[in-house]
Amino acid sequence: MSIKVGIVDTTFARVDMGSVAEKTLKEIAPNALIYRYTVPGIKDIPVAAKKLIEEKGCDGVITLGWVGSTLTDKLSYVVASLALQLVQLKTNKHIIDVTVHEDEAEKPEELVKIALDRTVKHCRNLVTLVTQGGEGLRRYAGKGLRQGREDVGPLTKT
Amino acid sequence: MSIKVGIVDTTFARVDMGSVAEKTLKEIAPNALIYRYTVPGIKDIPVAAKKLIEEKGCDGVITLGWVGSTLTDKLSYVVASLALQLVQLKTNKHIIDVTVHEDEAEKPEELVKIALDRTVKHCRNLVTLVTQGGEGLRRYAGKGLRQGREDVGPLTKT
Amino acid sequence: MSIKVGIVDTTFARVDMGSVAEKTLKEIAPNALIYRYTVPGIKDIPVAAKKLIEEKGCDGVITLGWVGSTLTDKLSYVVASLALQLVQLKTNKHIIDVTVHEDEAEKPEELVKIALDRTVKHCRNLVTLVTQGGEGLRRYAGKGLRQGREDVGPLTKT
Amino acid sequence: MSIKVGIVDTTFARVDMGSVAEKTLKEIAPNALIYRYTVPGIKDIPVAAKKLIEEKGCDGVITLGWVGSTLTDKLSYVVASLALQLVQLKTNKHIIDVTVHEDEAEKPEELVKIALDRTVKHCRNLVTLVTQGGEGLRRYAGKGLRQGREDVGPLTKT
Amino acid sequence: MSIKVGIVDTTFARVDMGSVAEKTLKEIAPNALIYRYTVPGIKDIPVAAKKLIEEKGCDGVITLGWVGSTLTDKLSYVVASLALQLVQLKTNKHIIDVTVHEDEAEKPEELVKIALDRTVKHCRNLVTLVTQGGEGLRRYAGKGLRQGREDVGPLTKT
Repeated sequence: MSIKVGIVDTTFARVDMGSVAEKTLKEIAPNALIYRYTVPGIKDIPVAAKKLIEEKGCDGVITLGWVGSTLTDKLSYVVASLALQLVQLKTNKHIIDVTVHEDEAEKPEELVKIALDRTVKHCRNLVTLVTQGGEGLRRYAGKGLRQGREDVGPLTKT
Repeated sequence: MSIKVGIVDTTFARVDMGSVAEKTLKEIAPNALIYRYTVPGIKDIPVAAKKLIEEKGCDGVITLGWVGSTLTDKLSYVVASLALQLVQLKTNKHIIDVTVHEDEAEKPEELVKIALDRTVKHCRNLVTLVTQGGEGLRRYAGKGLRQGREDVGPLTKT
Repeated sequence: MSIKVGIVDTTFARVDMGSVAEKTLKEIAPNALIYRYTVPGIKDIPVAAKKLIEEKGCDGVITLGWVGSTLTDKLSYVVASLALQLVQLKTNKHIIDVTVHEDEAEKPEELVKIALDRTVKHCRNLVTLVTQGGEGLRRYAGKGLRQGREDVGPLTKT
Repeated sequence: MSIKVGIVDTTFARVDMGSVAEKTLKEIAPNALIYRYTVPGIKDIPVAAKKLIEEKGCDGVITLGWVGSTLTDKLSYVVASLALQLVQLKTNKHIIDVTVHEDEAEKPEELVKIALDRTVKHCRNLVTLVTQGGEGLRRYAGKGLRQGREDVGPLTKT
Repeated sequence: MSIKVGIVDTTFARVDMGSVAEKTLKEIAPNALIYRYTVPGIKDIPVAAKKLIEEKGCDGVITLGWVGSTLTDKLSYVVASLALQLVQLKTNKHIIDVTVHEDEAEKPEELVKIALDRTVKHCRNLVTLVTQGGEGLRRYAGKGLRQGREDVGPLTKT
């Protein structure tokens, strides 16, 4: 049985993370049905994610936000991100809320790198959660994994 | 079949964005039924938007807030904006939450320019979302579009 | 048919805005039934407003909060104000969330002036919204009205 | 008919405000049934308050939180306090959300004084609200009452 | 009758707090059924906690988050933590929302120590709450207990 995965991305973003996610999901879950929904900015994402779950029957969604560096942008991030929590709690489905913040890097090429790495890794996380539930990531628990940058690793040896 | 679009604006705003939105919507969606609701300030917007959707049957709403530059204003923005998320999640309709912040520009004429540009562009976004769903903005995904200012463009060539 | 209007005020406030609201409402809406509910502080306001709507049948409510100047006070403002949004969205009734912040003015007499002006003007706003809906304030849309201070006016001539 | 009042307190607090509240409530409402629920910290308070109302039938609850002075502590305060609003709106019962913040005073003895005064005065407020509704505090409206410190009084003579 | 306890942990964390919690719970509640759910980061925790309660029937859950030191991390903490409140209020079950913040200590070994101590002590708190309700922690009320560090004790003798 194939899974259904949703992608919500924005026209505000400066990297086409949606297409990267689409390509990645097709590679790691070739049988998955993929639904994509493009909105203007991060505050338009939550209702789109909800519609993908409720109207398209998605088993999980990855959302790809791009956040400016002003205080207003940060506040909008809180608003959008909290609404994504509400969608998850309403539907009992995972939504991986990926965001790239413009204050994460000084150079554009670094921001691009963060966006691509974060998108790809979180696509994998989403597929693992959707197909294997809470067991699939067990072996990485506490391992200091990072998306967007290199893993920092655990602070202790186990 | 014509669409129904709601506009919520405020008496606090220093630019009559509601009339601009009304005019813009009539141009780009001549058959649309347009409902307008004017409230005092941003914290009065969410229930008005909800009433336009539930009582007038609007398929989508554009809200036009004006936000002062104090910390209290910013906090009120969070409050209003989060409530607009709740309305969207309750109704599964898009509400484009347009706000102009007084700290975005130093000169009044620049604020006016931002307000007009943002209103017009987001009217287009709303009509696209309401009439074409998540597909309509696909070709602009990750293109660094901006409302209120010129587009900044994508960081990568695709 | 007379309207029912609720007033929620606090013992924390340093101006008896509740009595001012009561007097103002009686003047501008002589047939209105007025319900008043006094609570200790702003965080006690939302449930009181909800009770006035659900148990007394109020068509709209004005709440009169007084906010200290510490970070904790500001955070409490967010909490109370967001809860007032929830009440509005639950009941589809307008609640005008009036607050006076102690950092708005240095001199006590100025704070008093702000409190009185804001209360009176928002009483008018509430009655307009309750009796005329979203049309009543249309002519002031984008006019830069202020409550607590003088109107700043629009930035453009229309 | 006796009222039922709930007390939620924490092991994080450095003053046993729960016992103070219990003693105070017994003095001012000798016939009241008192339920007490002790949790680790402020984020554990809301569900406890909800259970006291829904499972024990409490007519009102006083919660006694103690908040550290870091940014994380302040954010946790927002989270807990907002959740207490949700409980109130769900149940239509007053919950007086008492908190003592470690940055309110420099000396421990002053913090103790604040904690005791605030607890005692808010117990009185709760009993008044539960037994007399929105009328009971009317005569103190706008009087600048404070809990934890001396009343500051009104800014105007009425 | 055995209790069911859930553990939600992350791959972002740099200490395997989930395994520590699992071991601790087995020691202090040998008959407990333990369910573990590993997610990428803190924003993925709330829906996992909800699923453990609703789908596995957990009587209580401990969540183990790791929070970076940027403003964005702090905001994500608020978002996740507030969502955990919503899960508690929806289910009337305690969720102990444990988080370790990277700005709590300068040295890695100190962070590890905090993580371990906090996890162990809060496992005890959870079992006490689940098995004894609001009475179990009564004797520690106001005692200035700390998790992650040594107890600071009460400010007054009782």
